[in-house]
Amino acid sequence: MERDKRITSHLGLTARAFGADEIILSGEEDDTPLETWEAVSERFGGKLECRYEPKPMGWLRAFSKGGGTIVHLTMYGKPWREVSEKIPFDRPVAVVVGGTKVPGELFGIADYNVAVGNQPHSEVAALAVFLDTWRGELEPERFSDGLVEVLPSDSGKKIVSRED
Amino acid sequence: MERDKRITSHLGLTARAFGADEIILSGEEDDTPLETWEAVSERFGGKLECRYEPKPMGWLRAFSKGGGTIVHLTMYGKPWREVSEKIPFDRPVAVVVGGTKVPGELFGIADYNVAVGNQPHSEVAALAVFLDTWRGELEPERFSDGLVEVLPSDSGKKIVSRED
Repeated sequence: MERDKRITSHLGLTARAFGADEIILSGEEDDTPLETWEAVSERFGGKLECRYEPKPMGWLRAFSKGGGTIVHLTMYGKPWREVSEKIPFDRPVAVVVGGTKVPGELFGIADYNVAVGNQPHSEVAALAVFLDTWRGELEPERFSDGLVEVLPSDSGKKIVSRED
Repeated sequence: MERDKRITSHLGLTARAFGADEIILSGEEDDTPLETWEAVSERFGGKLECRYEPKPMGWLRAFSKGGGTIVHLTMYGKPWREVSEKIPFDRPVAVVVGGTKVPGELFGIADYNVAVGNQPHSEVAALAVFLDTWRGELEPERFSDGLVEVLPSDSGKKIVSRED
């Protein structure tokens, strides 16, 4: 679950923007992405938990045993358009974005091995499209407590700031 | 339009996987991403043009004058769910993914300034979700001439290879 740092940063920001409540980072221990995600969350609003997990497979086994649903995003999985609607909303779901060195065991313990297309592209793209399809539109008040708000515009940058 | 190299690579692969016919790279001249995209295209199929453009704004002005539609993805734009359905299919469309140093002129020459959410996340995520929403499902034969084909699976990696 090792990967480029910029990609890791984009993955977490994408998870947040598309509705994740918590981000668990594994692989090489590095606080930089956690700090980035927390800083963005504080500035742009919403609630987000972030932490590092040294033993991701053990954590996933326990999560599964406790009734959680594991979704593993992989280009080798089943089509996301079909699978998404089967994945429940009424219990905790962990979406695993592995990278190239995912242990084979993950395919077995995952409840759903999901492909956003069977072409090679990007785990950031896969995460975004999966979450957007599965979760759909977010509640508008999700990020309303931020210090900064971007207003949709046709012509340029419109920002409301409550920063000092 | 400068950015991290891994992000650039992911952007191009995402464009290809979600239906782009051509990728035009600007900013720092570097052949590595073009080579990556061409290699993936040869191996996994489909037709893809890739090239470097030293003067992106000039190219966009000419493209617009020639009747092309410019879509600029930016977190400051209008909501993609609403805008996507207005963007035509019957003439060339250039989707511009800028990065942080986009010239202000781009907002003006773009036919559509489109936001995939007004939260900061990732240009890779924005491109994927926009293309998936706008283009929808790709024709199944799009990548059928590849040397390698990944078969959707619930349990692991299934690959058909026609490589020597």
